[in-house]
Amino acid sequence: MHKDKISAPVIKRLPRYYRFLGELLENGCKKISSRELSDKMGLTASQIRQDLNCFGEFGQQGYGYPVESLHHEIGSILGLSHRYKAILIGAGNLGKAVAVHISFASRGFQLVGIFDNDPDKIGGTIHDIPIKDTSELEQFCQEHLVNVAILCVPKEAAPDIAEQLYRIGIRSFWNFSHYDLSVHYQDIIVENVHLNDSLMVLCYKISNNETASDGN
Amino acid sequence: MHKDKISAPVIKRLPRYYRFLGELLENGCKKISSRELSDKMGLTASQIRQDLNCFGEFGQQGYGYPVESLHHEIGSILGLSHRYKAILIGAGNLGKAVAVHISFASRGFQLVGIFDNDPDKIGGTIHDIPIKDTSELEQFCQEHLVNVAILCVPKEAAPDIAEQLYRIGIRSFWNFSHYDLSVHYQDIIVENVHLNDSLMVLCYKISNNETASDGN
Repeated sequence: MHKDKISAPVIKRLPRYYRFLGELLENGCKKISSRELSDKMGLTASQIRQDLNCFGEFGQQGYGYPVESLHHEIGSILGLSHRYKAILIGAGNLGKAVAVHISFASRGFQLVGIFDNDPDKIGGTIHDIPIKDTSELEQFCQEHLVNVAILCVPKEAAPDIAEQLYRIGIRSFWNFSHYDLSVHYQDIIVENVHLNDSLMVLCYKISNNETASDGN
Repeated sequence: MHKDKISAPVIKRLPRYYRFLGELLENGCKKISSRELSDKMGLTASQIRQDLNCFGEFGQQGYGYPVESLHHEIGSILGLSHRYKAILIGAGNLGKAVAVHISFASRGFQLVGIFDNDPDKIGGTIHDIPIKDTSELEQFCQEHLVNVAILCVPKEAAPDIAEQLYRIGIRSFWNFSHYDLSVHYQDIIVENVHLNDSLMVLCYKISNNETASDGN
C-alpha cells in the first residue's frame, strides 16, 4: 500500500498522527480534513497532505481523510501489531518508570523480563515481572527469543552490558543510557532517549526565546 | 561570536557535540580533527564542518578543532551557564527518575521544587527536596521566581495543571506527559519527551530493519 522509503522526519511524526487519529476515533470522529488535522496538530495543512501522501492514496478533495482506515494504515506502517519481545536492563527509578508507564502491547512490544545486578533488587518484581540477575541474561534470551533490550543503566555500566547483549545476539535497543551505541555497533537498530540532551535543547530554546509559534 | 539563526536539526545535535567534547576534555585531548570527531560521533566529516561553521570560525585546515574552546562555545550557545529555576510536577516513578538522574546544574537549570496532589506523597522528599501540595504552586512560583515546569503527570492530569501553570505565568515546559501543550498555548517554550512515540519509532525501525549504518 505505502511507498518503500519514508524519510526520517516523517517517521518521527507518524506516532503523533497515530495518537491524534486514535483520539479522534475514540471521540467517534469518522473523517477529518487536513485543515482540521493541522489545527489540532500545529502543522500546516500542506505539510500534512505531503506527509500522508507518502504512504498511500488517502483523502479526497473536499471530503477529508477517513479516520479509522488512516489510523489503521499508520499503525500498520509503524508495525504496531508485532509483539517484539523486550527485556529491560536496570531496575532503578528510570527502569521502574519505563516498566510501569509504557503501554508496550499497543506499541508493538511485550516486556518479558527485567534484569539488574543489584542483589537488593534481584528477586523483587515490577508489575508482576520478576527482577532477575544479569548473569541469567544469555539463557533467558535464548529461551524466550528476546528481540530487544531496553537500557536503563548508568552510562558507566552501558558498555559492558551492551557488549554482553550484542554477543548474545540482541540487535535492537531502546537506549536510555548516555552511551552512544550506534558508534560502537553499526549493525544494530537503536532508538535513543537522551534526557540530558533534551534538557539542553530546552535550555537553548529558553535562552533564545524559541516559542511553540516558531514551530518548536 | 555565532550567527543569529541556527537550524533546528543542528540545535538537536549540539548537546551531542557538547557531550563528546566534554569526554575528550576529560581525557586530556586538546585538539581534534573533523575526521576523528566524525568517527567518534557517526556523522560525516563534512556534516561536522558544516555544523560547526554555523557558530563561528572554529578549526583550521590541517590543525583541527581546539577542544576546550569549542566545548565552551557550544555550552555558551546552549546557554548552560544559566540557572533557570525549575519545578517538577508529579512525584511518581517518572518524576522521581527525572529528579534523581538528571544533572540539572550542568544543563542550565536548578530544581527548586517538587509538587504532587497525592496526600501519600506530599510531605515526603526526593533528593532532599520536599514534595509539596499543588495547591501551593502559585505562591511558591511567585516567591521563587520559577521559570520552568517539568510535567511528569499522566495525560489526563496534564490539561488542568498546564492551565494552572500558564495562568501563574510559567511559559517554559519540559513535557513528559502525552499532552500536546504547543497546540493549546502558542507563546510557550516547550521541549517534549514522548516516550511512547519513541517506542513506536523503534517498532518502525525494527519492522523495516533500519540499522545504525543507515544513519539512524
